[in-house]
Amino acid sequence: MIAKPQSLLAIEPLDARQILDILTLAARMDPSRPKPTLSSRRIALLFYENSTRTRTSFEIAAKALGASCVVIHATTASIEKGESLKDTGKTLQSIVDAIVMRHPNSGAPLFLSRLIDIPIINAGDGMHAHPSQALLDAFTILQHRKSLEGLKIVTIGDIFHSRVARSDAHLFRKLGARVVLCGPDVLLPETALALAPGVEIVRDMEEAIREADVVMMLRVQQERLVGMQINVDEYVRRYQLTASRLKLAKKDALVMHPGPMIRGMEMTDEVADCPQSVVLEQVLNGVKVRMAILETLLGEKR
Amino acid sequence: MIAKPQSLLAIEPLDARQILDILTLAARMDPSRPKPTLSSRRIALLFYENSTRTRTSFEIAAKALGASCVVIHATTASIEKGESLKDTGKTLQSIVDAIVMRHPNSGAPLFLSRLIDIPIINAGDGMHAHPSQALLDAFTILQHRKSLEGLKIVTIGDIFHSRVARSDAHLFRKLGARVVLCGPDVLLPETALALAPGVEIVRDMEEAIREADVVMMLRVQQERLVGMQINVDEYVRRYQLTASRLKLAKKDALVMHPGPMIRGMEMTDEVADCPQSVVLEQVLNGVKVRMAILETLLGEKR
Amino acid sequence: MIAKPQSLLAIEPLDARQILDILTLAARMDPSRPKPTLSSRRIALLFYENSTRTRTSFEIAAKALGASCVVIHATTASIEKGESLKDTGKTLQSIVDAIVMRHPNSGAPLFLSRLIDIPIINAGDGMHAHPSQALLDAFTILQHRKSLEGLKIVTIGDIFHSRVARSDAHLFRKLGARVVLCGPDVLLPETALALAPGVEIVRDMEEAIREADVVMMLRVQQERLVGMQINVDEYVRRYQLTASRLKLAKKDALVMHPGPMIRGMEMTDEVADCPQSVVLEQVLNGVKVRMAILETLLGEKR
Repeated sequence: MIAKPQSLLAIEPLDARQILDILTLAARMDPSRPKPTLSSRRIALLFYENSTRTRTSFEIAAKALGASCVVIHATTASIEKGESLKDTGKTLQSIVDAIVMRHPNSGAPLFLSRLIDIPIINAGDGMHAHPSQALLDAFTILQHRKSLEGLKIVTIGDIFHSRVARSDAHLFRKLGARVVLCGPDVLLPETALALAPGVEIVRDMEEAIREADVVMMLRVQQERLVGMQINVDEYVRRYQLTASRLKLAKKDALVMHPGPMIRGMEMTDEVADCPQSVVLEQVLNGVKVRMAILETLLGEKR
Repeated sequence: MIAKPQSLLAIEPLDARQILDILTLAARMDPSRPKPTLSSRRIALLFYENSTRTRTSFEIAAKALGASCVVIHATTASIEKGESLKDTGKTLQSIVDAIVMRHPNSGAPLFLSRLIDIPIINAGDGMHAHPSQALLDAFTILQHRKSLEGLKIVTIGDIFHSRVARSDAHLFRKLGARVVLCGPDVLLPETALALAPGVEIVRDMEEAIREADVVMMLRVQQERLVGMQINVDEYVRRYQLTASRLKLAKKDALVMHPGPMIRGMEMTDEVADCPQSVVLEQVLNGVKVRMAILETLLGEKR
Repeated sequence: MIAKPQSLLAIEPLDARQILDILTLAARMDPSRPKPTLSSRRIALLFYENSTRTRTSFEIAAKALGASCVVIHATTASIEKGESLKDTGKTLQSIVDAIVMRHPNSGAPLFLSRLIDIPIINAGDGMHAHPSQALLDAFTILQHRKSLEGLKIVTIGDIFHSRVARSDAHLFRKLGARVVLCGPDVLLPETALALAPGVEIVRDMEEAIREADVVMMLRVQQERLVGMQINVDEYVRRYQLTASRLKLAKKDALVMHPGPMIRGMEMTDEVADCPQSVVLEQVLNGVKVRMAILETLLGEKR
């Protein structure tokens, strides 16, 4: 479905039909009722960066489908130094059926997918893409809206360094939403207009958020603000999602965050725990969507 | 059974009936004959401290019941910095059915259990509690004695820093045993009398051990002795369990240790390997008791 | 079959019949079709050294047979300091059915096997032995040759520090092959003639490789060359497997490497990817052979 070898590297190569197919399949997935459709499949979780959240989500998804998982934390010197990514990939290809891969370098999963013949699932690569996150974000919105067509989705925070923002922008645009980005120059340069076709930049948070259907807050790493023209206090003052700011959005606007969030930074406690917040739904949906991704790429009936 | 949400945080909230129910169930468990009573359940092992022994024991127990495990070593920076324990717990709650948790801070599991609705199983928190260890200790004694009623159980060593000693004292008292604590002032202050109702302190090891039914030796970490009024040599001279000291206890007294033990420190090689030592039985019983705990908290028939 | 307790510690204690029995069984193994012959068995993977490749291979093999695995990375301080290998082993013996063990000290698995009663599978110990690697190497050769009888097998590189070279030499000799070792004095002292009965040393690579049936390249760790009479450039010039050197071997000679290889060091890219290279076959065969080892040592029908 997604091109041979059936990999999921980014949102760009997918069309709206393919995206909706995965989301439709995800809606039928229930991680608490394991069904062994992938019981003869072996999946390597190859993580060159720590990521408890994404690794755990993929691991639970794979096991719920009966697949056998092997976790490789390449961060703790377990990949012998000097071995190339190519040879690591070819080695794994001999013994597993798919690789779920996180890597600090943008493009590493694409590079590997060109060299080996088993599906590669990009679990986040540098500042490039995080397609399973974008799919679960769309899935979460679709549990509260009939479609993304015409929705105003505002993403606020460190857009520049965010693979989530990139993948989200592509996916939301493909499904017909309006994508508005908001943040200070240093975290959202004008070049971000090239992030995905048709995205808009609005600098003022109040203006950006007005009449929004979805407010997606992105993590801001304090260390990234060091030496920039903006300090933490000013960032919080200008870009934190507060209850009063949230009132500017539509009454039933959804509050989202890819996690892990820092309360008091990106949003107040009050907002984090308000009824409009679907942050925890995103987590559960993450497992469902990843089950659908694995089933799509590895299932028998394809 | 243990209060909603059915968590196991400490021994104190349990009554003798509840304790015996778990131990009775444990006696029917056989880790070498897996039975998939929890095959649709997902369990997170969330360890903020390293603990091969306890983590392995819970992992084997969970798998023997068919549960799906995901191990999260929060010690190796895999929990993103800045995220609160609350949000980590709520995230996990969305995707697993229970959390087995070890944390360096006393009370962390209790704190989390108040915020989320899935069972939390305390696998050791700071200097507070280690209830599964106490249950396995009682189980091990009951494999050699009809009941704990009236037994003299002596615990020797670093009582002050030991969550095992605290949980043991509560449990042994609830089942009617006499609990005698022994150790130097610095590792066993007089305030230890408040550890659990009815415990006794005896400073002299020979006197403490006399006519004991059970001698429980606790690990002494040498770094804890640094700068104290007692040095390693003197500690060994006064508190090491030797064959001649063991003769002062009842003839069939049990020698126990929660592990990992350091031979030549807490006890001699001769004692560690003597027929009265049930240290290795404790390990196997640990898996059985943890199977019973998981079955009690997560099994269908509740 | 391999002596009680049925452990696999080295190649030396095996006779040709026992070796061929394992390899015959391996040929019937298919990791992509799990068969739960060990579904009630629990296996600890106890690694005192990092080894993604070998650990992953054993883990996939064990899971393909339905066994329950628990991974213990003893390198990351998870084995509490001070506990002896003996007590770690005895602890594990209480709760698992076998231990797959890697340790930096030669003889550690043998030491442990004398103290406990469950099978120990040596997954590499110091400079001593790596029997599962030798078995998979022989298996790979036998997929391309009817027997090892009379074959000329040349091993080139850091023989002195290599447990693979030791185990290979013993196994290849037992199956009747000629074993030729090649490398500079510092990595292949004359004493290497005592490595296994009947091995030969040939210093000149061209001469060593001439008419060879198998060319086994060993990893050379650059840090081991520091301070020696040979530098990296000279090593590469004298001992790298190039296409022109490979032409001196038999036309259908196999190129092997236990991995992880460093392209441009032990061999050129061209050779690594040439049709004669069976490096990736070795990886898949590793899983099959390890399935056969586990089945042999732990299977019901013994």
